[in-house]
Amino acid sequence: MTVTSPSRRAASETGDPFLLTPGPLTTSRSVKEAMVHDWGSRDAEFLRINREVLERLPAIANAAATHVTVPVQGSGTFAVEAMLTSLVPPDGEVLLLVNGAYGHRAKRILDIARRRALVHETAEDTPPDLAEVERILVAMPSITHVFAVHCETTSGILNPVAQIGALAAKHGKSFLLDSMSAFGALPLDANAVHADAIAASSNKCIEGVPGLGFVLCRRDVLAKAKGNATTLVLDLHDQWLAFEKTGQYRFTPPIQVIVAFHQALTEFLAEGGQPGRGGRYTANCRLLVDGMRALGFRPLLPDALQAPIIVTFHMPKDPRFVFQRFYDSLKDRGYVIYPGKLTVADSFRIGCIGHLGRAEIEGALAAVREALAEFGMTDAAMAA
Amino acid sequence: MTVTSPSRRAASETGDPFLLTPGPLTTSRSVKEAMVHDWGSRDAEFLRINREVLERLPAIANAAATHVTVPVQGSGTFAVEAMLTSLVPPDGEVLLLVNGAYGHRAKRILDIARRRALVHETAEDTPPDLAEVERILVAMPSITHVFAVHCETTSGILNPVAQIGALAAKHGKSFLLDSMSAFGALPLDANAVHADAIAASSNKCIEGVPGLGFVLCRRDVLAKAKGNATTLVLDLHDQWLAFEKTGQYRFTPPIQVIVAFHQALTEFLAEGGQPGRGGRYTANCRLLVDGMRALGFRPLLPDALQAPIIVTFHMPKDPRFVFQRFYDSLKDRGYVIYPGKLTVADSFRIGCIGHLGRAEIEGALAAVREALAEFGMTDAAMAA
Ligand SMILES: Cc1ncc(COP(=O)(O)O)c(C=O)c1O
Ligand SMILES: Cc1ncc(COP(=O)(O)O)c(C=O)c1O
Repeated sequence: MTVTSPSRRAASETGDPFLLTPGPLTTSRSVKEAMVHDWGSRDAEFLRINREVLERLPAIANAAATHVTVPVQGSGTFAVEAMLTSLVPPDGEVLLLVNGAYGHRAKRILDIARRRALVHETAEDTPPDLAEVERILVAMPSITHVFAVHCETTSGILNPVAQIGALAAKHGKSFLLDSMSAFGALPLDANAVHADAIAASSNKCIEGVPGLGFVLCRRDVLAKAKGNATTLVLDLHDQWLAFEKTGQYRFTPPIQVIVAFHQALTEFLAEGGQPGRGGRYTANCRLLVDGMRALGFRPLLPDALQAPIIVTFHMPKDPRFVFQRFYDSLKDRGYVIYPGKLTVADSFRIGCIGHLGRAEIEGALAAVREALAEFGMTDAAMAA
Repeated sequence: MTVTSPSRRAASETGDPFLLTPGPLTTSRSVKEAMVHDWGSRDAEFLRINREVLERLPAIANAAATHVTVPVQGSGTFAVEAMLTSLVPPDGEVLLLVNGAYGHRAKRILDIARRRALVHETAEDTPPDLAEVERILVAMPSITHVFAVHCETTSGILNPVAQIGALAAKHGKSFLLDSMSAFGALPLDANAVHADAIAASSNKCIEGVPGLGFVLCRRDVLAKAKGNATTLVLDLHDQWLAFEKTGQYRFTPPIQVIVAFHQALTEFLAEGGQPGRGGRYTANCRLLVDGMRALGFRPLLPDALQAPIIVTFHMPKDPRFVFQRFYDSLKDRGYVIYPGKLTVADSFRIGCIGHLGRAEIEGALAAVREALAEFGMTDAAMAA
């Protein structure tokens, strides 16, 4: 049986399906149109735009006085690997708080770099055990750094970064944070959480296009990081020095991506910065979770652990519900959702982030309702 | 004295100054407009576009049967570092043929990666001494790889890659080539030159926007490279396996950059591939060199060593000629040139590559003539 396309297909300002994913996500037309120009990498106008990007980012974490932005060409993982390999010295040791794929990825990065790393792992729906973390920090004086993931996008869980940072500070450890999917959406004060470095990227909650990672680094920590790096291109200290000396990238920057990111930051500030952006995402998330619950779907996480970024739902057990058909049916209606990444349960994910609001979330919920009807299901009630 | 802007300011299709630089360069409007859409990183249409990009590139080096494309998020240097660190094993040793900054950069990459590296250096206007290279290969059986730069963009010199590759093959060494600024413009048969790997990027002679590097690798060489890499993100073997298994990037790709690169490749093929593209650049270069000579400028290189990519000119000694004023005066007229990078002589550079032809080169020459007149010089004749 072939499913005919629904007559009403929703579309973004540029005619594209809405991306209800963890990013790359739906961006505004003006963000993308900023890219329809050429600049040289030493062009004064481009360098001014780039400088503004670098200056605006630390302010989002209330850290303009203490932290500098070191951009890293490439994706978010490039920024995380640059952070870990540039800031953890060869004789350092990192305690990694892991409850999903991005925590495991940090472990793999440290293993390849031959940096000692100890994992404190909890289930994908469970925050770290802070008492246990403190026991480890007391028992293992060789630990120099603590690494955590802000919103673990694997499940969408919000990890308790303030408490983790406080423990790290209490025991004299340097706190490194992967805030990739949360940065700009969740409140974050770099100094209040004692974060020496925060990694994020252009294509998440700031709503730019992909191609640039960045690390906000405490200036004094960075200044001591000379010679740690295991590569040329991911050396945050060297990249920073070049900006200090010349105001320029060491190697060709993704110019159009940066100019789009600048426009995205302008729109982010116009929306009221983190409170405005986070407020919209929180409303999106509330609407989505309530609507999906009403349709019989069950979120993985209790509301208290759910970050307003991406929601994991249990896969309905009803044999009429086939995920690929569900995905295709929603895509035909103009909404792209995301497969699950859990190791523990069969699931799928729907994002709340990007250039989306009430109308798009309501549209997505209507599409879910239509898809269920197509499968002969009135709701997705299940004993998952 | 403030210089008033000239009345006729030349501009590209999108109103930008023409970039007579080694890239990022002037791209067509259609290449940039391809970016005004959003795609998810697992989107079927994006994955098809990406697959076509990966398939089209080896054919440009007549290597579709032997080499695969491994893309690397980031700039060209990321691709060079990925090539050197993924393909040279910990017990390998590389002979580097250096006559400019990009050869020195490869040495720095290998030093950081703790790979043994031996440098054969010649002056920036001088190709490697092939007899000496052969003597080294004979005397040093520990050498496993030879590295060269195709067009050393520092000067614009064309290095003899066929002869270098033949020597490497004769002595059983693996040949790694940085063809960043030449790929697509100069004839290159990967198998004829015995290149196991060729690094290049999106924003040079294929005329895309910056943000993606790539390495064309012999499949059998890549298959043996497991475990060499010193990082996660620059591991060509792991990146390749992911494409083989899933058709997807391991980490978020710069989607818009890739879609623009696809459009650039379509336009490259429509121009007749390398012969067409290289023909236009050769005509640009001829016109530029002849025109500049007629205005009294002296190119660094004899015609036989000059690649049709970027031309280095000696700086006029006349005190009325101040480079920054010259640069600004040309930029005011809509043409961006490039500072010199030579260590041996005071110089500047003008590129022949990008979405430019006869009209733009003639326009640039007219602008140079006007700038000289502005400085009260009738020509730039000088004893440099
Ligand atoms: C928490 C977290 N860390 C790291 C990454 C990796 O980013 P990228 O895919 O841009 O490499 C992601 C991507 O979703 C993420 O959510
Ligand atoms: C020969 C050569 N190698 C490497 C590079 C480095 O490329 P990127 O600036 O994109 O890192 C360049 C850039 O011009 C180049 O010309």
